[in-house]
Amino acid sequence: MKKRNLFYAQSGGVTAVINATACGVIETARARRDRVGKVYAGRMGIVGALREELIDTGKDSAKAIAALRHTPGGAFGSVRYKLKGIEESRAEYERLIEVFRAHDIGYFIYNGGGDSMDTANKIAQVARNMDYEITCVGVPKTVDNDLPITDTCPGFGSVAKYVAVSTLEAGIDVGSMPQTKVFILEVMGRHAGWIAAAGALAGKDRSEPPHIILFPEVPFDDASFLAKVKESVERYDSCVIVASEGIRRTDGHFVAESGTRDAFGHAQLGGVAPQLAELIRGKLGYKFHWAVADYLQRSARHIASAVDVEQAYAMGKAAVEMAVAGVHGKLPVIVRTSDQPYRWKVGEAPLAKVANVEKKLPKKYITSDGFHITNACRRYLAPLIKGEDYPPYKDGLPIYVKLKNELAKKKLPAWEG
Amino acid sequence: MKKRNLFYAQSGGVTAVINATACGVIETARARRDRVGKVYAGRMGIVGALREELIDTGKDSAKAIAALRHTPGGAFGSVRYKLKGIEESRAEYERLIEVFRAHDIGYFIYNGGGDSMDTANKIAQVARNMDYEITCVGVPKTVDNDLPITDTCPGFGSVAKYVAVSTLEAGIDVGSMPQTKVFILEVMGRHAGWIAAAGALAGKDRSEPPHIILFPEVPFDDASFLAKVKESVERYDSCVIVASEGIRRTDGHFVAESGTRDAFGHAQLGGVAPQLAELIRGKLGYKFHWAVADYLQRSARHIASAVDVEQAYAMGKAAVEMAVAGVHGKLPVIVRTSDQPYRWKVGEAPLAKVANVEKKLPKKYITSDGFHITNACRRYLAPLIKGEDYPPYKDGLPIYVKLKNELAKKKLPAWEG
Repeated sequence: MKKRNLFYAQSGGVTAVINATACGVIETARARRDRVGKVYAGRMGIVGALREELIDTGKDSAKAIAALRHTPGGAFGSVRYKLKGIEESRAEYERLIEVFRAHDIGYFIYNGGGDSMDTANKIAQVARNMDYEITCVGVPKTVDNDLPITDTCPGFGSVAKYVAVSTLEAGIDVGSMPQTKVFILEVMGRHAGWIAAAGALAGKDRSEPPHIILFPEVPFDDASFLAKVKESVERYDSCVIVASEGIRRTDGHFVAESGTRDAFGHAQLGGVAPQLAELIRGKLGYKFHWAVADYLQRSARHIASAVDVEQAYAMGKAAVEMAVAGVHGKLPVIVRTSDQPYRWKVGEAPLAKVANVEKKLPKKYITSDGFHITNACRRYLAPLIKGEDYPPYKDGLPIYVKLKNELAKKKLPAWEG
Repeated sequence: MKKRNLFYAQSGGVTAVINATACGVIETARARRDRVGKVYAGRMGIVGALREELIDTGKDSAKAIAALRHTPGGAFGSVRYKLKGIEESRAEYERLIEVFRAHDIGYFIYNGGGDSMDTANKIAQVARNMDYEITCVGVPKTVDNDLPITDTCPGFGSVAKYVAVSTLEAGIDVGSMPQTKVFILEVMGRHAGWIAAAGALAGKDRSEPPHIILFPEVPFDDASFLAKVKESVERYDSCVIVASEGIRRTDGHFVAESGTRDAFGHAQLGGVAPQLAELIRGKLGYKFHWAVADYLQRSARHIASAVDVEQAYAMGKAAVEMAVAGVHGKLPVIVRTSDQPYRWKVGEAPLAKVANVEKKLPKKYITSDGFHITNACRRYLAPLIKGEDYPPYKDGLPIYVKLKNELAKKKLPAWEG
């Protein structure tokens, strides 16, 4: 069979291990010189394809590519850019195929969350309709862990480990300082509470920090929250809270929308943690501290989960193997075969089944009072943070690689998108 | 010479390595059975002495004590409790000596910042005035790095490493997401900008993140800050900012005081990072993210600096050696003998010279525009974050020790303080 080129793109929010997936893609493609020619990466994801900005990863040494495995962030740039329906965005889809044709792209690998799997699926359809021969494969990625079918999403295990370790450490700090009664850690999760749930791994049960977890799946009610905080302080002398950024009041409003306005009448920017702290201060008067982890949590490669790194790499590798084998319109997924000892294998799923479906925390994973996780949830989460996978260090700092990111020569007129 | 007992107390905010100092104290005291009897630790610092709540560290195994070296937080509890002047608080000082006498405390080791060195110094004086024979030794500790004489303070190197690594990782994240233009990391430092300065180690110079550092030593002015942000975004396509919590406007007000009031008329709780973000949103309109590290930074034992851990332990060890040698009213300090290669040794200083003096960032460490560090500052900071000193892990989480904390039998009436 003829050699074809490969195009790989990263999409949406980056993670501590999305480059480990890129490493798996590029190393596997390089090992399949019989079938894969050049490996291009989109500069800023799919936008790079639209603009014909194709990074020639062949310019980087094997050593540099290997270092991607321990480098956080998106090595080629990533954007939030959602292609709409085929009819609505036909010009964009056609442009993509045009660029693919100009560079003889025979394999398209798209690394992202639910939206991106939808895009990959549409590109797969349009290509067939335009009689362009290409194999389209997705690769799961999202810190939110909200994709269906796959047991977990690469990126989640590492943010889970960061949140669990940080909660453990902050909990010890609060426990050492009897004057501070409440500590709140705000974590990511607009719609699904997986990341917040992972904070619970810091304690053996709810007698240890964190005492309270706030999930977007559970409507937030001031009175029952405050009662729980009071109970925790009275029983354990402190209350450590892990809160999802996306928690909403019973009326559907985000808690992070404070309703407060500044001197110019602008709505005060929230942050769930300061809002909760203010509520506690006003109603209970406890001394508190709060932290907002934001980007630190998803870029914390220094405390990545070894399981997550391994799975991220394996997904990239499997995607190339599937592409070369002509498996079109699918993505590799993680299939758990045993909780304890933890065992998993690589499976496959159709892109269409993963596209645009949000997997929230199931009811059986949340305690009946809505403020903690069940043992079933603990069994699910525990293996995902296992193992350390430290990057190399020099002078006290991790050595993260910066690729050359040289663009291939353009062959088409500029895109007027 | 007669064996006497030792009393050790931790004071003020805890750190990732104050327990490494405790480890140094206890292990060294155990090795000097010829001169040191029991080793007591104050439950909640000096308050434990006032209440006669003396933890008998002899109940814990050598293995448990050794594990203190890699455990964050304050193993015996810590409080912010400042004894006032001798005349004003005579009853408290006399009570302390009474408790020491009842338990035959011949060595008093106080582990804290400038306030605590003042307290230790006063206790040293009162004891002599009351004809009670005791050797009082301080041990430096503060994440703020604001003690004079000592080259650095145990606790600082690890928070510096956390902030540098986090800034590096978040900077890579922001660099991967061209839609996000500004990232702000708020770090500790009410009066001194050492911690914020450490963020600068993430980049080789100001062309790399962080592009802007905000120090409490430099009055904050909206217009020049915004101009700097704009310049950074235009030149480098993003702007990563590390901000001290304690930055003040030219009129002396903290930036974290927003002037905003909530529905109940309460002053809105700040956080410098959201205030700066709001300012940037309003005036420049850039897309931004912000994080507040709070307790995470000072409890992050998982990313401690090996140099810091070693120095923290060495200070505890030296304090016991000084106490046993009868060095009264002093504390061990870190003396730098060479920047490159980094070399240091243990020195001594009088408590009175360290008490109540705040060492701020000198002018020569801040660039003339006030927004970054100089090469001299970089030379000073760089060695302090060197080396990794990972705790052991089990099931993906660090194994941190919890001591028994058994109290010695009380011998005195309860304290009516």
